[in-house]
Amino acid sequence: MIRITFPDNSVREFESGVSGLDIAQSISNSLARDVVAVSVNSEIWDATRPIQSDAAVVLHKFETPEGKHAFWHSSAHLMAEALEALYPGIKFGIGPAIDNGFYYDVDPGEGVIITEADLPRIEEKMVELGRNNSHFRREDIGKNDVLKLFRQKNDEYKIELIEGLEDGTITLYKHGNFTDLCRGPHIPDTSFIKAIKLLSIAGAYWRGDEKRKQLTRIYGITFPKKQMLDDYLVILEQAKARDHRKLGRELELFTFSQKVGQGLPLWLPKGAQLRERLENFLKKIQSKYGYLPVITPHIGHKELYVTSGHYEKYGKDSFQPIHTPEEGEEFLLKPMNCPHHCEIYRSKPRSYKDLPVRYAEFGTVYRYEQSGELHGLTRVRGFTQDDAHLFCRPDQIKEEFIKVIDIIYTVFKAFDFQDFTAQISLRDPENKEKYIGSDENWEKAERAIIEATQEKKMQTVTVKGEAAFYGPKLDFIVKDALGRKWQLGTIQVDYNLPERFELEYTGSDDQKYRPVMIHRAPFGSMERFMAVLIEHTAGKFPLWLTPDQVVVLPISEKYHDYAEKVLKFLNNYDIRTLIDSRNEKIGKKIRDNELKRIPYLLVVGEKEEAEGTVSVRRQGEGDQGSMKLESFRDFIQEEVDKQMINVI
Amino acid sequence: MIRITFPDNSVREFESGVSGLDIAQSISNSLARDVVAVSVNSEIWDATRPIQSDAAVVLHKFETPEGKHAFWHSSAHLMAEALEALYPGIKFGIGPAIDNGFYYDVDPGEGVIITEADLPRIEEKMVELGRNNSHFRREDIGKNDVLKLFRQKNDEYKIELIEGLEDGTITLYKHGNFTDLCRGPHIPDTSFIKAIKLLSIAGAYWRGDEKRKQLTRIYGITFPKKQMLDDYLVILEQAKARDHRKLGRELELFTFSQKVGQGLPLWLPKGAQLRERLENFLKKIQSKYGYLPVITPHIGHKELYVTSGHYEKYGKDSFQPIHTPEEGEEFLLKPMNCPHHCEIYRSKPRSYKDLPVRYAEFGTVYRYEQSGELHGLTRVRGFTQDDAHLFCRPDQIKEEFIKVIDIIYTVFKAFDFQDFTAQISLRDPENKEKYIGSDENWEKAERAIIEATQEKKMQTVTVKGEAAFYGPKLDFIVKDALGRKWQLGTIQVDYNLPERFELEYTGSDDQKYRPVMIHRAPFGSMERFMAVLIEHTAGKFPLWLTPDQVVVLPISEKYHDYAEKVLKFLNNYDIRTLIDSRNEKIGKKIRDNELKRIPYLLVVGEKEEAEGTVSVRRQGEGDQGSMKLESFRDFIQEEVDKQMINVI
Repeated sequence: MIRITFPDNSVREFESGVSGLDIAQSISNSLARDVVAVSVNSEIWDATRPIQSDAAVVLHKFETPEGKHAFWHSSAHLMAEALEALYPGIKFGIGPAIDNGFYYDVDPGEGVIITEADLPRIEEKMVELGRNNSHFRREDIGKNDVLKLFRQKNDEYKIELIEGLEDGTITLYKHGNFTDLCRGPHIPDTSFIKAIKLLSIAGAYWRGDEKRKQLTRIYGITFPKKQMLDDYLVILEQAKARDHRKLGRELELFTFSQKVGQGLPLWLPKGAQLRERLENFLKKIQSKYGYLPVITPHIGHKELYVTSGHYEKYGKDSFQPIHTPEEGEEFLLKPMNCPHHCEIYRSKPRSYKDLPVRYAEFGTVYRYEQSGELHGLTRVRGFTQDDAHLFCRPDQIKEEFIKVIDIIYTVFKAFDFQDFTAQISLRDPENKEKYIGSDENWEKAERAIIEATQEKKMQTVTVKGEAAFYGPKLDFIVKDALGRKWQLGTIQVDYNLPERFELEYTGSDDQKYRPVMIHRAPFGSMERFMAVLIEHTAGKFPLWLTPDQVVVLPISEKYHDYAEKVLKFLNNYDIRTLIDSRNEKIGKKIRDNELKRIPYLLVVGEKEEAEGTVSVRRQGEGDQGSMKLESFRDFIQEEVDKQMINVI
Repeated sequence: MIRITFPDNSVREFESGVSGLDIAQSISNSLARDVVAVSVNSEIWDATRPIQSDAAVVLHKFETPEGKHAFWHSSAHLMAEALEALYPGIKFGIGPAIDNGFYYDVDPGEGVIITEADLPRIEEKMVELGRNNSHFRREDIGKNDVLKLFRQKNDEYKIELIEGLEDGTITLYKHGNFTDLCRGPHIPDTSFIKAIKLLSIAGAYWRGDEKRKQLTRIYGITFPKKQMLDDYLVILEQAKARDHRKLGRELELFTFSQKVGQGLPLWLPKGAQLRERLENFLKKIQSKYGYLPVITPHIGHKELYVTSGHYEKYGKDSFQPIHTPEEGEEFLLKPMNCPHHCEIYRSKPRSYKDLPVRYAEFGTVYRYEQSGELHGLTRVRGFTQDDAHLFCRPDQIKEEFIKVIDIIYTVFKAFDFQDFTAQISLRDPENKEKYIGSDENWEKAERAIIEATQEKKMQTVTVKGEAAFYGPKLDFIVKDALGRKWQLGTIQVDYNLPERFELEYTGSDDQKYRPVMIHRAPFGSMERFMAVLIEHTAGKFPLWLTPDQVVVLPISEKYHDYAEKVLKFLNNYDIRTLIDSRNEKIGKKIRDNELKRIPYLLVVGEKEEAEGTVSVRRQGEGDQGSMKLESFRDFIQEEVDKQMINVI
């Protein structure tokens, strides 16, 4: 008999060789139908794999990240089986599970092209093969035998992968007619896969190397229930409609130019104004919290990065250095603002009474990304961090964390992110030598973070071993309107840079001490936050933030003068107002301006001019009745004030 | 007889061989005493050189730029004569006139060092030799004879210079015991030099090449009257006290770090806040004038600069290109914002009705300067332009110029630059082929600029041939509080970039046309403007702009609570207030804070606490009496409002 410990620390005895599925069965039949994988002593296993000795066990349904991973990985194998049936001789690269579904990179052979038009046929074949209820079988085999197998299949990509593995036994998975090089785990059998959708096709270089062959990448997703797929496809449609690249273009917020360079956004006037409002909003909050603005250049001398330690890491993944034509100097495009801020801290002597010092900068940084990785405003080569660095005494960490949490809460509230969680990343207590900074300081900082989150009554997950080598951190993850998760806001303790830059303050005992540095960025970057905000709000920004707040729609040319009067009046009160003076029917004007997501539409005609009123429509909500011009001004100002009072 | 034409177009006849000095003498003795050089057919000559044929003649006194140049150049020769007397065997590099005085680069020989302590002795020797009234004599001699002369002297630097000259005759100038290779012109004799001051010593590489020998550069200045030197030295002292590098450090506005890199300013909190106020001030004005903000990256793809034409000019004087680790892309640090703005203009189709479009950006650019050329905030390697580019139709140039002139006037008014002139730079009508753009467009633009300045009743100087090859321009030159001139504000027409970027708009006739581009920057750059402003105001910025507006000085510790109350009250109304809570005598507190140039000092003690008042002192102006706290708030707000209403 072996002892199985469950997550609630209860223990039960089972025969040696029992599987996760058996254990589930022993609890209930319905549970057994849902379990797709199992964690055995923190390692993810097939639910069918025999457990031979005492173990801590967690059963995973599809709903867990581990369950989804096994489910989608198995679905990739099922797709491969279907492809092999439809395209004999097809060769396979890699086929992993991803965040939403799975893909497989394949080489269908000389002259054979798979297009999106072929996806339904492949789907059908997957459904057909899935009905065979084929079991996934794990086999450990000697490397030479595995090589022999794939050489018979003439599968050059797999052979290359196998050749790269260490000698010894290699794990294969088989189901139905398909065998793959694979570490697993997999679901018990293909019958679990009840709903299948192949989504798209893309090109992908073998091993990400543009000098090698371009394979065909087929993306798909699967679910254990038909309804789940239907729900997913609805969300997918909504996400497409909210895609920040599409809305950014339509709302004229930003653009890209091949000549300026890929991944380097150009902020158009409406976007630049919106960004400025975002920055002013945060500046106002930060000023209240005692932050001091600084401005630093976008390049730094090599010496700066030798000191910070970044220079060693410069290479394959970075923009290459900038040389001067004379004097042999070497500069780097700045990948982060912290080294510059450390030099400002060093620019004068500091006393314990001066701390904390909080330097804030909307600092634009540049990091190389391969062009294939670029994506709208979320993966770019240049972005502006809403950066700040707090230099404090070790005994001030907790208070500083609480203040930063307050700022992040204010930001979430202002943009209606109601659903968020936080993760505390601590060091691995078993591997203390991996981290820099004294034991005492680590304990102090970790305790400070935990206590800060407790005082703020936060819902947190604590993960040991996830801290950076230079300090523990706190991450915020928000759910947007479609339930998608975004990491927004990190608070990171840093013992490394103060050490490397030899930062000091004089204590009350006249001795020199190292300050602790805290990095934080509530938005993360202006670019990424803009993208998240567009997708979260579907372009319907809060009234205080939105590019244009009001559009005046004269019923005909006769009322243009009155429309101008309304425009001037409102603009005079800093209410951002436009006129649609096109010679179009009022119905068309309303429809067109609704699409522009302008919150208020003011229809003006004979009656309005005579009475000094406007007919108010709220975007997406229709007619709100008539209002005196002055009342409308008060109404708008109150709405904005209320939004601001609620947060600041 | 020859015909001499004077600047007023009057003509008189003289004997052939008459000199400028003779002509002056024929007018009056006193004029002859003042004339130090003469222009003959626009070439500058010695006043003593015989004129052999008909000529247009302008006589130059010391007060003209031409006169100063001859005077200071001759003074450099006099200094060289003195040096040769004091340091036999000394060798000479070059010794030109500069904006304020002259210098000579010398090599005093192995083991001989000239320090600032030696300057009085050299000055004395100059005075002594000057009293000889030695005449400057011009001689044209064959190259070989000149070489022989300097080889005898063993003057290796002069020999190198002579060897670099074309064969033929070479001009020498002799006076007293000194002979120099020199094109002249010079003053008649050394008696004109009545006041001498040698100012400083620096190292300077021979021919500016750091691989060659470092020579000793001796700076000096001279005047025809003792009083002029006294006045100059007073100004020099004042300028030193106002030096923006010194005040920038004392007022904690900016700093530099060797690690970040030379010539790359770090804006400290007080400087960053001040800069932000400057930017907001201009943003507000620009928004009123219909400017639209944009934000662009600090690098651009090679392709952008190939299109703009800048790429060809990249080389010896520029930061070298940034390469990507993969994909073989090449980027440049942006040296100007215009190409990026052209790409934004291109991002959508434009109609004649959309113009003018005015894109504004506080855009940071990077330009390489040799480290020896760097100077505080006025010569830097990275700076932020208050840049804007106006895209308009040719018929809109005049109106756009008038609007930009209005903005520049507003800026000058806000910062109390009362004394300024403007220069209109037109093309050289004799060399039209040097310029791009049609004749018609040039005439239209030049007329538009001239008419705009006339309508604004501006005091202007018009210079033909000073236009850029791509368009005419208007420059503003202001005099600061010490009477020094600074170029602030340029408005530049550009036909070149619209052509190279193929910018278009659709006219009312549905045909495609090229817009005209206008570059303008009222501040020039934030860095340079900050430097000028510091030196102009001696760090006493206008109340609305100054970093700290008020400092509260409690008479003793007993009144700290009341001081805190005053602080909170004022900060609550956005009046930037500090407390000096040091345990010092009130007299010392007042003195220390006066030095910080904080406009208002509020002394608070028993009486003030009891009455809810503050005792107001104005920086540099002493006690202003007691005020209720609320009245002081109103008083400050009124002063700021008045400053703003006057300008915006």
